[in-house]
Amino acid sequence: MELLESLRWRYATKRMSGQKIDQETTDKILEAIRLAPSSYGLTPYQILHITSDGAREKLLPACYSQPQITESSSVLVFCAKTNIDDEAVDNFMRSLSEFRGVSLDSLSDYRGAVSGAVNRMTQEARINWAHRQCYIALGFGLVASAQLGVDSTPMEGFNPQMVDQVLDLSSRNLTSSCILAVGQRHPEGDYLVSAPKFRFPHEQLFINL
Amino acid sequence: MELLESLRWRYATKRMSGQKIDQETTDKILEAIRLAPSSYGLTPYQILHITSDGAREKLLPACYSQPQITESSSVLVFCAKTNIDDEAVDNFMRSLSEFRGVSLDSLSDYRGAVSGAVNRMTQEARINWAHRQCYIALGFGLVASAQLGVDSTPMEGFNPQMVDQVLDLSSRNLTSSCILAVGQRHPEGDYLVSAPKFRFPHEQLFINL
Repeated sequence: MELLESLRWRYATKRMSGQKIDQETTDKILEAIRLAPSSYGLTPYQILHITSDGAREKLLPACYSQPQITESSSVLVFCAKTNIDDEAVDNFMRSLSEFRGVSLDSLSDYRGAVSGAVNRMTQEARINWAHRQCYIALGFGLVASAQLGVDSTPMEGFNPQMVDQVLDLSSRNLTSSCILAVGQRHPEGDYLVSAPKFRFPHEQLFINL
Repeated sequence: MELLESLRWRYATKRMSGQKIDQETTDKILEAIRLAPSSYGLTPYQILHITSDGAREKLLPACYSQPQITESSSVLVFCAKTNIDDEAVDNFMRSLSEFRGVSLDSLSDYRGAVSGAVNRMTQEARINWAHRQCYIALGFGLVASAQLGVDSTPMEGFNPQMVDQVLDLSSRNLTSSCILAVGQRHPEGDYLVSAPKFRFPHEQLFINL
């Protein structure tokens, strides 16, 4: 679909059909999300890709029983890492040096900049910053789904403490940030399917300088 | 460009050519950003679209003199609203009721939910939440630019207090969140242009449940 056409077609799908999205298309959405940029490339998040019915059922009450959790094809839980420290920076630098085939020494200025930025932040600021990076990836997932003709719902309507608990996120040094359900709209069941999309007009959103 | 191909093509452009992006393409990027979803649709942000040389020059020192500020075609400064309160909710509901041609009364449950959510947050939490919404719009801007063959740089490397001051954002009840420079890569001047894109591999980013 043409870019703007696909973004006008998408909407926060409230009811889904239960239809599974084929693997190839799902993989493309995940790959688009993987390609999202993050601050310094550090990627201070991981993403749970939930397809199993058991995990969805556990998640459902933590998401105020919103039906997309079980009616979607899969559910992505974007999670901020809670252990962004020098060890995480070193781990990233090692992966980068292997990938690019360059020495760690050649990355030392870069390492210093990233480590400095991380260490200047309080733990609370680091998690807020990690959450923001999650939302770039969420944006990538939303646009990619629309471009591929897949419906999706960005969700903040959940109890983060409960989600962290039922998914045992603390044992992975993660905390829940935002959720994206992907699937197929239920054309009869969804009151929003025919609602015209409201956005503030251009002149109220943008300020030209 | 095909979606994944365009996302592999894009990179955080460090040097731009100064070439202007044509108006039609710029307008498409802005429209994609306008179509980004936000929590409840409330859109707790505004976006400065900076094309003038004077405003860029003022912005430059607050962005540690990164050359994209002046070498890009335009600079988007995503700003969180600092006055998200019941008046903002009512303003949104009025716009929505006019747009959909429905009464404000018919939106009262929705209004109650949004107002409840806003009032449950501290002012600090509200601003953090507004910042996160900015990053969805940033994600939309990044993907849209790539799809249209336009280079872009997402930027957090700036002094937010200085940016707020030089752009007089407090008088607009705004605070700077993130920046997106859009333009054309400078193929000779940019050391990153030929660097292979590193991302953590699929199995380190995603956890399957």
